[in-house]
Amino acid sequence: MSFTKKWLRKDIQSISAYHVPNSDNFLKLDAMESPFVPNQDFQNEFTDFLSKVEINRYPNPSADEVVQSLRNLMGVDDSYGVLLGNGSDELIQILAMACGEKESIMSFSPSFVMYEMIAKFTRLNYLDSPLIDFDINLEEALNLIETQKPKIIFIAYPNNPTGNLFNREKIETIIKSTDALVVLDEAYYAYSNDTFLNDIAKYENLVLLRTISKIGFAGVRLGLLIGSKEIVSGLNKIRLPYNVNSLTQAACKFLLNKKDYLQSHANSIVNERKKLIESLKKYKNITVFPSQANFVLIKTEESEKFFNFLLEKKILIKNLSKMKGLMNYLRITIGSKQDNSIFSSALDEFFS
Amino acid sequence: MSFTKKWLRKDIQSISAYHVPNSDNFLKLDAMESPFVPNQDFQNEFTDFLSKVEINRYPNPSADEVVQSLRNLMGVDDSYGVLLGNGSDELIQILAMACGEKESIMSFSPSFVMYEMIAKFTRLNYLDSPLIDFDINLEEALNLIETQKPKIIFIAYPNNPTGNLFNREKIETIIKSTDALVVLDEAYYAYSNDTFLNDIAKYENLVLLRTISKIGFAGVRLGLLIGSKEIVSGLNKIRLPYNVNSLTQAACKFLLNKKDYLQSHANSIVNERKKLIESLKKYKNITVFPSQANFVLIKTEESEKFFNFLLEKKILIKNLSKMKGLMNYLRITIGSKQDNSIFSSALDEFFS
Repeated sequence: MSFTKKWLRKDIQSISAYHVPNSDNFLKLDAMESPFVPNQDFQNEFTDFLSKVEINRYPNPSADEVVQSLRNLMGVDDSYGVLLGNGSDELIQILAMACGEKESIMSFSPSFVMYEMIAKFTRLNYLDSPLIDFDINLEEALNLIETQKPKIIFIAYPNNPTGNLFNREKIETIIKSTDALVVLDEAYYAYSNDTFLNDIAKYENLVLLRTISKIGFAGVRLGLLIGSKEIVSGLNKIRLPYNVNSLTQAACKFLLNKKDYLQSHANSIVNERKKLIESLKKYKNITVFPSQANFVLIKTEESEKFFNFLLEKKILIKNLSKMKGLMNYLRITIGSKQDNSIFSSALDEFFS
Repeated sequence: MSFTKKWLRKDIQSISAYHVPNSDNFLKLDAMESPFVPNQDFQNEFTDFLSKVEINRYPNPSADEVVQSLRNLMGVDDSYGVLLGNGSDELIQILAMACGEKESIMSFSPSFVMYEMIAKFTRLNYLDSPLIDFDINLEEALNLIETQKPKIIFIAYPNNPTGNLFNREKIETIIKSTDALVVLDEAYYAYSNDTFLNDIAKYENLVLLRTISKIGFAGVRLGLLIGSKEIVSGLNKIRLPYNVNSLTQAACKFLLNKKDYLQSHANSIVNERKKLIESLKKYKNITVFPSQANFVLIKTEESEKFFNFLLEKKILIKNLSKMKGLMNYLRITIGSKQDNSIFSSALDEFFS
């Protein structure tokens, strides 16, 4: 038996590394990326900013200016604390490390897969509360909370991959019912008409996660956790020093101040989402689910065939059929007007 | 009692967040940074590279081109695997997560503090083997290995903050004696006359850590783990997807191909180190320790006074007095010729 087989935890050996499909030369409608490419002026101004980075020196360890830019962009009150990570993923990992041995992380299914993955990486139990009609099964969730006493409850709001907002009252009931830290993951906040940002002041055990990946800057990898100053200061002890590098910091100081640019793109995505949903609804063998995010979930008996048909046309969407309970579901990221017109033509060609 | 006090692990509450002293307008000789600032042509070429980044898209998840650049720069054989992290810190954390519940990480003291910190974050035991005369106490280390069975043994080579290489035969004895993964941390490889790079093929349980932080690019935050393809593939399952962002990847593809630039700077640091050691040796109330790194460790009864004298002159070095066993020790990072001449003048002024 090789050293690695003997040495590495068995539960890690049995999983596969996170798979990212090759997408060279594809129209990418699979990963909730923004379709908007900055124009030349924007790009020049941006690289001017980057050129001022002292690459030979360590980054500013607290990245204060980035935090301030995020506060301005997202309207985060000065009384709240903000913790930065390399994408939300690193923040989920910090949260998991804050838990003790044998403790549990709870979330809902289907939802973002990294909650469960990171629970496994950090040797925690994972508790799953299956959704009913894509909403929280409150009775079951409360029962799980009472009997299993999770340390953290992750709630994606809007949820990925379903795209909807769970019932707000159910979430509030959960927050009030538990000693767990409740983490509202608002990755898709820019496309949603509700947020728990103002509720942080109300509930000591509530924090929010956000990211700039879905609002235009997936390549920059910056996530943030918003919560009370006390919880942020506690979690900050586990953060690795210098986790946000100097290029990212310089990039963010520029990018996050482009408030109008970001708002106009978010508006455009919301418009395109409406149009795309209409196109999809034309076909009675497609079930279209409501969306508060920059993607739309559909169900169709033709899912495999349609997915492969799109692949041949060099259009990549997300096939969810292998996820538990999502047989025949597909997820389509909202692209630009032009992207969506290419997708809609393919849709019409296949389903007409 | 507040929510955070009830909720957060007690052992995390009792530590302080990693402290980075304010260094605005200081001559920074505290953090093993490179003193070399790229010239304008270099900078222009660099920002041209960065301007091609598609910030709206997720990074290349495997960062293949960065890996290839690192292979070329460091002469890493194609038969070895390479895993990338946000600095070595993230790789140490991945290694720690690969361990199981109740397992132990072992290292030596004094050494790099993050081995112990990350063991704590990831709820592992930490085993400390104190150095004797800054070298491994082989008998004690082998006894600890046999009785406590650590899962990972971290060995900094050269060691920080002592600056020396441990005895090579002792390290080989340890590698051969244990079922642990032995991690040789070669952060300072560029300034050292030995490496274990060629030993990876010999020992299944040996991996290396390196970083680009000490060779000129601390702001970029990129570390690498070099080991067998099998161990790298196992550890890769724990790596968070997209952990190396697009700006970092673009920066590295440019920076790491500047082999001559990097080599000439490394040579210059080694020359300056020699000169600095000579300056320090002039004073009989300073003990100077040999160095294979881009810093020099000294001991003097005047450590506090000298440190504060330098602070007043806006020169920042590292005061190690609060580290266990390092009362009256100071660590001075090797700067440019000009930096070192400023330091040496202050040295002469204080000690003459």
